[in-house]
Amino acid sequence: MAAAARPARSETTGIGLLGLGVVGSAVARAIVGRHGSGDPNVPLTVRAVVVQDPQRKRAVDLDRSIISTDADSVIANPEVGIVVELMGGEDPAFDYISRSLNGGKHVVTANKEVLCKRGGELLAIAAENDVQLLYEASVGGGIPIIGPLMNDLTANRIQSIRAIINGTTNFILTKMAHEGADFNDVLAEAQSLGYAETDPTADVDGFDSLYKISVLARLAFHTEVSIDAIHREGIRGVHAKDFRYASELGFTIKLLAVAQANEKSGLLTRVHPALIPLSVPMASVNGVLNAVEVEGDLVGRLWFQGPGAGPEPTASAVLGDILRIVRGGPGASTRADVPAPFDIASMDDHVCQYYLRLTVADRPGVLASIAKVLGDADISIGSVLQKDIDPENESADLVIMTHPAREANMQNAVSSLKRLDAVMRLDSLLRVETYPSRS
Amino acid sequence: MAAAARPARSETTGIGLLGLGVVGSAVARAIVGRHGSGDPNVPLTVRAVVVQDPQRKRAVDLDRSIISTDADSVIANPEVGIVVELMGGEDPAFDYISRSLNGGKHVVTANKEVLCKRGGELLAIAAENDVQLLYEASVGGGIPIIGPLMNDLTANRIQSIRAIINGTTNFILTKMAHEGADFNDVLAEAQSLGYAETDPTADVDGFDSLYKISVLARLAFHTEVSIDAIHREGIRGVHAKDFRYASELGFTIKLLAVAQANEKSGLLTRVHPALIPLSVPMASVNGVLNAVEVEGDLVGRLWFQGPGAGPEPTASAVLGDILRIVRGGPGASTRADVPAPFDIASMDDHVCQYYLRLTVADRPGVLASIAKVLGDADISIGSVLQKDIDPENESADLVIMTHPAREANMQNAVSSLKRLDAVMRLDSLLRVETYPSRS
Repeated sequence: MAAAARPARSETTGIGLLGLGVVGSAVARAIVGRHGSGDPNVPLTVRAVVVQDPQRKRAVDLDRSIISTDADSVIANPEVGIVVELMGGEDPAFDYISRSLNGGKHVVTANKEVLCKRGGELLAIAAENDVQLLYEASVGGGIPIIGPLMNDLTANRIQSIRAIINGTTNFILTKMAHEGADFNDVLAEAQSLGYAETDPTADVDGFDSLYKISVLARLAFHTEVSIDAIHREGIRGVHAKDFRYASELGFTIKLLAVAQANEKSGLLTRVHPALIPLSVPMASVNGVLNAVEVEGDLVGRLWFQGPGAGPEPTASAVLGDILRIVRGGPGASTRADVPAPFDIASMDDHVCQYYLRLTVADRPGVLASIAKVLGDADISIGSVLQKDIDPENESADLVIMTHPAREANMQNAVSSLKRLDAVMRLDSLLRVETYPSRS
Repeated sequence: MAAAARPARSETTGIGLLGLGVVGSAVARAIVGRHGSGDPNVPLTVRAVVVQDPQRKRAVDLDRSIISTDADSVIANPEVGIVVELMGGEDPAFDYISRSLNGGKHVVTANKEVLCKRGGELLAIAAENDVQLLYEASVGGGIPIIGPLMNDLTANRIQSIRAIINGTTNFILTKMAHEGADFNDVLAEAQSLGYAETDPTADVDGFDSLYKISVLARLAFHTEVSIDAIHREGIRGVHAKDFRYASELGFTIKLLAVAQANEKSGLLTRVHPALIPLSVPMASVNGVLNAVEVEGDLVGRLWFQGPGAGPEPTASAVLGDILRIVRGGPGASTRADVPAPFDIASMDDHVCQYYLRLTVADRPGVLASIAKVLGDADISIGSVLQKDIDPENESADLVIMTHPAREANMQNAVSSLKRLDAVMRLDSLLRVETYPSRS
């Protein structure tokens, strides 16, 4: 730290990076780029970087001597004022972040998993140590959504957040919708393009969306939602046929992450594929784009959209948080005006229309027996389509749209439907997302 | 100020309101509502209100004794810590805001006109006095756009801002597009619905959009753009026919406010009706909605959309700024990392495709003479439609889409075209908004 290198107006802030993958490299490049080109008043310097393999070639030009495998070279480094955690996962990230905070360092992270699972603890540790834990990059890549919820929308009681916050699944579902392709074929294509991991579980089974919506819910509703309390379904069960039928009915299918609260029923958080009316903006969020719709009591319905992933957009969010700390903004931990948390609502009480696709025996009386089961469960049928009659197997597709019904009733009905002789298979049960009109 | 009324954890912040119209009343209601219902840690109290007519009935229940016509009851009131200016216009707002700032009070304003015309001076006064001047409500109603530019996106060099930020004109253009209606009829309807003023000049001639884009440009590009340097055209010249032809060509028409910068040509700020490809999201922003698209070098293209006006959305932004000050956030004036301003680019150098609608004599050789004029001005024709032949007047509509051309060349060509015998009238000259694809 040559004193002569310091600009006149303020001290250099030392950055320590935990992780130097594509995002870490983009953050490092942006820091090096800014420092060298016109922002002498907010000098940042990368002081130490922790990686798993110090020999690997990196997409940024950094002094080799600051790169090591020893986490303490960042966490315990007195020259590091801000620790940037880009490793992902719960362990050892929790340990590294908490030790950094306890050591009086600010932390910026893009790690939705550790924030979901241990974020409450980490924010408390940050508050105890009077340092900041910022995490704009953890949800929606470069889209400012944490910042607006933390700073700009604080006058509102947030009523709902609806989001498409997983680019991989949105890419897959968009391809399926536009090309009539099957899930497995599109997944393979996404994997070959680098949009999906070799093990796609975190994305396609909805875990990534779950982590992110829980991070948004904690912030917007001041409520800790345990993972077990979040309804989660992935997209493996969505078939090409469902897109065809949904489209005939005026819908497309998206993996939605939703958190909705009201004073009476509490906070419901859910991740599942949903039928979206083609007329609402969410239906047009295609490919790897992310979108977050926030509804507040004063502001009404707001819409934030942008690239939800990628090294540069994520670096935009990470570096934005770093600059926020350097400029001395207030952290989440400095909020004094936190209202009481909501109760946790049960998915059983969720009410929506349902889309049911069944393979049934193609013979008289079948619809009557199915309608009876639904009626007994207090579920009214809105419309029925019979499709794709298969003479060989004497079967047909039956697509039923219900009127709004309680989830618990539908689950009961599903159990009974599966026991009906005439029902050869329950292929799909999808929820229709309800957009209440604002008066 | 009874000390006993103060909550334990922090002092009450006194709010002074300049103006108590629909927005001021909504702000006052929100303050009273919060104070009474669950946010005891950020206590706010309305201490004084300045109005023109103290006898008028207001949509909020306030102690009459704090309402007066004397501006000093707010500006010079030692119990007022934050002045909220909701009067609009340059005078006397500039005087009131600057005196408040000089008196050590923070100011929150929704006044785009005074910010456009005198914002640079006011921000300097705020900085001198170490107080904040915040203005989220001045652009886009409740949409967080000032906050993201000021705080969340600071890691980016902003490249462009494209916005629909005037609800009145967007309501009118949407009606014209969907109903084939004429401007004057729709304006009358908008006036009867309260969406347009009796004197609609500020909206339909583009002044309101101009004020707002200049406020965004100052913040995003660190550059003062004088009103004279902003190209401004309103929507009075857009005809029902233009929507019909634009639609055939794959476009709709919106009043856009744009600020675009690059290192070479500088910053160009412009407000004008533009042809928007039906395939881009801006084409689907309908009615009184507002939308702002921000492009940054790291983050790529972001999209913010929501209700751009109305008392509650505006109150959301005003109260958000008040709470930001109470929580001790950094103001615009505390930014140290402000890069050098851009040069101001000339509209003459703007390059885009043009849509030309001419009423021409319906006889051979007309197109040849028009094509020659355009060719002489270095403008290539992309497509030509001949429409609505009128045998009685021996005239026809000629709709020309050009290839990208320089504005100065087009203005020269227009002068020459008007002198052609065959050209009976130049009805419309509209720019096509160019959306460069991001690789």
